[in-house]
Amino acid sequence: VAKNKELYAARRFNNNMGTSATLSLDQATPTQLRQWERELTQRYQDYKKARYQLDLTRGKPNPEQLDLSTALDGILQGQFHDTAGADLRNYGGLDGIPAAKQLFADIIGVHADEILVGGNSSLSMMYTTAQFCMHYSMNGAIDGDHSAWSSSGQPVKFLAPVPGYDRHFNLCRLLGIELIPIPLNNHGPALDQAEALVKQDPMIKGIWCVPRFSNPTGIVYSDDTVARLAELPRHAGPQFKIFWDNAYAVHAFSDNAPQVANMMDACRQCGTEDAIYLFGSTSKMTYPGAGVAYMGCSKANLACYKKRLGCTSIGPDKLNQQRHVLLFKDKAGIHAHMRQHAAIIRPRFDAVLNCLDQHLKDAGMGTWTRPEGGYFISFNTLPGLAKQVVTLTTEAGIKLTPAGAPFPYGKDPEDSTIRLAPTFPSVSDVKQAMEVFVVCIQLASVRQRLANLTGSCSPSK
Amino acid sequence: VAKNKELYAARRFNNNMGTSATLSLDQATPTQLRQWERELTQRYQDYKKARYQLDLTRGKPNPEQLDLSTALDGILQGQFHDTAGADLRNYGGLDGIPAAKQLFADIIGVHADEILVGGNSSLSMMYTTAQFCMHYSMNGAIDGDHSAWSSSGQPVKFLAPVPGYDRHFNLCRLLGIELIPIPLNNHGPALDQAEALVKQDPMIKGIWCVPRFSNPTGIVYSDDTVARLAELPRHAGPQFKIFWDNAYAVHAFSDNAPQVANMMDACRQCGTEDAIYLFGSTSKMTYPGAGVAYMGCSKANLACYKKRLGCTSIGPDKLNQQRHVLLFKDKAGIHAHMRQHAAIIRPRFDAVLNCLDQHLKDAGMGTWTRPEGGYFISFNTLPGLAKQVVTLTTEAGIKLTPAGAPFPYGKDPEDSTIRLAPTFPSVSDVKQAMEVFVVCIQLASVRQRLANLTGSCSPSK
Repeated sequence: VAKNKELYAARRFNNNMGTSATLSLDQATPTQLRQWERELTQRYQDYKKARYQLDLTRGKPNPEQLDLSTALDGILQGQFHDTAGADLRNYGGLDGIPAAKQLFADIIGVHADEILVGGNSSLSMMYTTAQFCMHYSMNGAIDGDHSAWSSSGQPVKFLAPVPGYDRHFNLCRLLGIELIPIPLNNHGPALDQAEALVKQDPMIKGIWCVPRFSNPTGIVYSDDTVARLAELPRHAGPQFKIFWDNAYAVHAFSDNAPQVANMMDACRQCGTEDAIYLFGSTSKMTYPGAGVAYMGCSKANLACYKKRLGCTSIGPDKLNQQRHVLLFKDKAGIHAHMRQHAAIIRPRFDAVLNCLDQHLKDAGMGTWTRPEGGYFISFNTLPGLAKQVVTLTTEAGIKLTPAGAPFPYGKDPEDSTIRLAPTFPSVSDVKQAMEVFVVCIQLASVRQRLANLTGSCSPSK
Repeated sequence: VAKNKELYAARRFNNNMGTSATLSLDQATPTQLRQWERELTQRYQDYKKARYQLDLTRGKPNPEQLDLSTALDGILQGQFHDTAGADLRNYGGLDGIPAAKQLFADIIGVHADEILVGGNSSLSMMYTTAQFCMHYSMNGAIDGDHSAWSSSGQPVKFLAPVPGYDRHFNLCRLLGIELIPIPLNNHGPALDQAEALVKQDPMIKGIWCVPRFSNPTGIVYSDDTVARLAELPRHAGPQFKIFWDNAYAVHAFSDNAPQVANMMDACRQCGTEDAIYLFGSTSKMTYPGAGVAYMGCSKANLACYKKRLGCTSIGPDKLNQQRHVLLFKDKAGIHAHMRQHAAIIRPRFDAVLNCLDQHLKDAGMGTWTRPEGGYFISFNTLPGLAKQVVTLTTEAGIKLTPAGAPFPYGKDPEDSTIRLAPTFPSVSDVKQAMEVFVVCIQLASVRQRLANLTGSCSPSK
């Protein structure tokens, strides 16, 4: 009962927040700011008393999404053989079953002989690829090849468009690869900077790209970006590789969402097809962890990769590939399935954006992205406030991804990026979490403004 | 019709082979040898005309064995949560589901907090473990640790008991690890030699062991071998690791087959538990490729492994683990399941052994092992004949594993070991293939004897 009373009190405060859209930081007088600070602090204290336990941390599908794939259990029905007659229950085949290769080649935009369909984790494939490049090279024979990234003894470096995906950065960290952040703009990585950097340092051996609905900003690479990125290896030192993690290739909220141009075709056009590895998985189509991952690359690279992979693996789980083929049937089947996901996810994104629009539009307290697909929204606080806001929300029971996580070494130079991941909680939980988030943004922003005013107007200065 | 006639002719010749048990090489006169050589050549030519297409190459379960696990399809029935309530369809958990950890810890003889249950391939786990040891070390922090095997810049070496498993050797080859063969005797590796070698060369960083029903000889490590192996790391240089590939831990043909002592307990007793990694999988319990692999090691090693693995993987396929838990239920369920496998495999091994006993017993043309489990029988020809025999059988339509494959770099110094893998073909195909094999052994042995006699009796000498 006591808790309900607090919840009610918190909601009442929140309803009064209709006024908060008028909280425009730049035009506020010190008196107004102090008044707002008192009101917001009270509201924040009430939220704390409500003892929320909400989580906008992870890009996880919610149970309703997972239920879309329940047919996978029992789907085989004795269909244990591939089109060539091979028994998928037994040993054999390093690069996946023919039907899965055809299906996912369509999705990442490569030919069916330019794909390897593997296990459950595209991240593991990226690691394996990078590890092979690092220690053995990815062109040439297994023995006696000295063109591995590590062969010169110099530190290996990667370009990391930021904000980006923390798991890409951790993978590099394990391999001892140094990360050089470059800005990720609304249409893709800052390519002037990328080109200048790879020209001056041949030890830069790669770049991370999440081309569609980028994690965490949700931006989509423009056609110009794709064309220019395909040229990037020509400016770089030997063995430069583009890691094209197209994790959200078919994860749009509508059929009108922006598309990404075919990267493999772009590379082919300028002769850089040996410098690109494309990755994807069904982690967010069927089940995270129990899905199927795939990698596209040139035939030459694929032959080399398979030669090395054959020393480390008996091949992928072909039955799980068969399950996915039987569930999806074809590319149209994937798109139909993904529309069902979109119908479940979209209201959660709308809840975030509506709340931000309602309370923070023209408030001068930050900006945010409006992705048309994917799993994340990026919120940019005023410089220097991201960590503080995450601390405030955490203490009020709303878990957010740690500030800084989308940056190499966890260091956001502006301390302003916050990743919001609204897919897992219910719509009402997303709404509630966002109401608390907004108050934390307002409180931190007003306090900063007040501190700045006090600092600049202080008579002691 | 023509082919049937040839088959009939071949079978008729074969029936005459009742005499062949009397082919005792040592007591034969040159005249007898020449007579036998003519007869055997004729018989061999008839087999060639019969155009067999039989395969004793791979340690693959046959379709009847695979049918034992058909219940896996559709077994989940909505049981998507583990005992702690976690949704197994979603992200989370790097070391496997609790029920799978308990189940397989029982099988490899470690505590439930000393196991990681992973993906579909124990070979991949072995590679990952070796790769982590090679480049990052397996003790200590991710950054700034300089005790990786590769850190000294000296070549890293492994002991390879031979004959052994070619995939172990290929894995080392990829990592640039040099293999030092030591004999595998009837009770395990030659430990006098192993101890002397690791004492004199601290760059020997590991040893491969297949302790029960070893590939390809089928021998089982004795209790003394286990106890002494557990001490081996104390004689070796730093970061020495035993790779304990217990691939056939529960793959006995009867309940009376010899057991292997608990290796983790043995290591614990002499304080070497950080020097052992134990591996296994359900590849030959349920489905090769669509099974579950697991690794046991000390808690300290597991913590380090998981820290590194977390940078490279989103975790294993938890649903496939759940399928296996639901199929097997417990250790007794696994043993009951494996008895069904044994009933299918045993007649195939009997077919091989009966044929060898019938035609080659006391013939002085080679020796062979009599495994009580596993997937292989090893045949030792007279020195210098293995390659020739494999060539002869291949030309007669019987595929065998290439001679030399069970040795590092494919080099059998005696050229005498042939691996026979009888599980995949039907019993009648195994019988037929073995009849041809026996004739090839006889023919090669008689020809060698004749050549030796001619050489030694030649007047020109």
